[in-house]
Amino acid sequence: MDLHVVVPAGGSGTRLWPLSRATNPKFLHPLTGTERSLLQATYDRLVPLSSADHVHVVTGVAHAAAVARQLPELPERNILVEPLARDSCAAIALAAAVIQQRSPGAVMASFAADHLIKEPAAFAATVREAARGAAEGKLMTIGIAPTRPETGYGYLQCSATAELGVQQQVLEFKEKPDLATATEYVNSGRYLWNASMFVWRTDVFLGELERRRPDVFEPVSKIAKAWDTDERAVVVDELWATIPKVAVEYAVMEPAAAEGLVSTVPGDFGWSDIGDFETLGELLAADQDGARVVTTPGAGDVVAVDSSDVVAVPAGGRLVATLGVRDLIVVDTPDAVLVCHRDRAQDIKRLTEILRDTGRTAYV
Amino acid sequence: MDLHVVVPAGGSGTRLWPLSRATNPKFLHPLTGTERSLLQATYDRLVPLSSADHVHVVTGVAHAAAVARQLPELPERNILVEPLARDSCAAIALAAAVIQQRSPGAVMASFAADHLIKEPAAFAATVREAARGAAEGKLMTIGIAPTRPETGYGYLQCSATAELGVQQQVLEFKEKPDLATATEYVNSGRYLWNASMFVWRTDVFLGELERRRPDVFEPVSKIAKAWDTDERAVVVDELWATIPKVAVEYAVMEPAAAEGLVSTVPGDFGWSDIGDFETLGELLAADQDGARVVTTPGAGDVVAVDSSDVVAVPAGGRLVATLGVRDLIVVDTPDAVLVCHRDRAQDIKRLTEILRDTGRTAYV
Repeated sequence: MDLHVVVPAGGSGTRLWPLSRATNPKFLHPLTGTERSLLQATYDRLVPLSSADHVHVVTGVAHAAAVARQLPELPERNILVEPLARDSCAAIALAAAVIQQRSPGAVMASFAADHLIKEPAAFAATVREAARGAAEGKLMTIGIAPTRPETGYGYLQCSATAELGVQQQVLEFKEKPDLATATEYVNSGRYLWNASMFVWRTDVFLGELERRRPDVFEPVSKIAKAWDTDERAVVVDELWATIPKVAVEYAVMEPAAAEGLVSTVPGDFGWSDIGDFETLGELLAADQDGARVVTTPGAGDVVAVDSSDVVAVPAGGRLVATLGVRDLIVVDTPDAVLVCHRDRAQDIKRLTEILRDTGRTAYV
Repeated sequence: MDLHVVVPAGGSGTRLWPLSRATNPKFLHPLTGTERSLLQATYDRLVPLSSADHVHVVTGVAHAAAVARQLPELPERNILVEPLARDSCAAIALAAAVIQQRSPGAVMASFAADHLIKEPAAFAATVREAARGAAEGKLMTIGIAPTRPETGYGYLQCSATAELGVQQQVLEFKEKPDLATATEYVNSGRYLWNASMFVWRTDVFLGELERRRPDVFEPVSKIAKAWDTDERAVVVDELWATIPKVAVEYAVMEPAAAEGLVSTVPGDFGWSDIGDFETLGELLAADQDGARVVTTPGAGDVVAVDSSDVVAVPAGGRLVATLGVRDLIVVDTPDAVLVCHRDRAQDIKRLTEILRDTGRTAYV
């Protein structure tokens, strides 16, 4: 399989504040008990499906240096740096167009930089099946077999009961549902989580993009043509800022699904998006004190006395002690401490907005 | 009034961990919204009742330098440094005996270094009345008119209904009561809190000490005789360690009260012992976010979102953010963070014991 891989590495992971910051986002952190960051773990997982030469990371100017240092094996020409964030359609289209220049008609697969996958072999098998569909000209996704009626994700509606590893058509992309709807989805067996994992031939995707969103396709195509030439800087400067901000689902995948052009391979490989501390805590085993401790390099000690269901992140290197508390998230970092009820993990994003609105931008 | 003042400055205030440490105890901290430490505030309150020349601080070797620096106006000869902690009877007896050497028959008053008094004028009037009783040869205490059935303090049983500012006999010193007993005490109007405030003539106190505890009196007398001479070091080295550890209440005041020798002046002057974060929080007004913030020099910022009844101590200089929590104490310091339920403020002492027992002595 000659698979080309794209890893969009953007977003600041504000629901993991104060650990994740705009200047030091989630994907650069080791969060799962190893020394490897989420980006590095993503790279490690994808190289065996492809090759270092065929892995590409699309990232912003703020993180280009960190990406280059964290992935020393990644060829410099495969680090695609966006001058400004232009949402996922621009990022993925740029990668698709550059790959198309370098390897016309390549099969490419795109995966987020900050997701966790516990069973890489099952993941690899699912990707291979999706690549087979992509080679035949389909726009493929990998859908996650849901384990709970999650309201934080979008869903893929399948044409029949989802069967692991077996391709089937996607009827519709569904927005994040309410709990009742999510419960119906999960009980029906015909819905999968959308984890924004896409597999397609670059020529097929770019053709769909040209047809549906010429306002994205035109500038991206010109930029890609100039990418490996001396003209790159001039063309990027001129055109990048003109690209509309739009998500790839909205621009291409949803309308394509409505026309029957999208298929999916249902997968079950221990996926997590580590979207918030609650999700992160669920991945960890409780220690003898009953705390789930996120250990990062240089982490401090945690002492939880008479405490239950505490997620502790001693990333500031200090001792974190709790006494007589329950259902709390406690995050210590060098310049900020957060104490949050576990039920409010999703609202940490709002807290960062409050910090920004009240002039505390240095902490965000 | 030629009053001599003694301030025993010992104890590490473990219920205020991690703010208060063995190496940096409560009395050295500014905790009440000013730049002055509790020791400095105590000094400021007492000098007008006496004079810098007549104020004495009894402290341990670990804190002698800090006391000297915090109170530059205090004469060096009035900083009495104990080589080893020998409990309150030894500390107070040493001060009494040294004062007796320097000013025979002086009236002396003893007050803790780490209590807060909101109404210094009312306090001064109460002390003056107690000094009058002391001059007549009584062992005087100042009792605090109780405002709640507190189970964390000892009580003074009065001979009649307590009347503010009016001397009366103490029948008995009562140990810390249970809640039912404390409620009876408070409802009766005949009980006062024992705040370990004592006023007496040095000759009277030393006479009682000689009669009741010669094992304390003998070595302390010899040490005091040598104190202002070249012999001090030799005599202290020889005798200090032989002094039994005993509280002054137990050694002298309780048995003296049983013989009708102790009187009290009931006082009401906004006293607090700032014994734990709960007490400290009650002294503070809630800010606009609903948090009670203990501001110390170099304190960090506090942002409390959807949080109620939070006592925050951002003494590490970091931002402390809370989201969706209630009834919590959050203390940030340069090397340790504590998150504690407000109902468990008293048990922080136990937490420090756990830290010690598990080899985390550097944090205690």
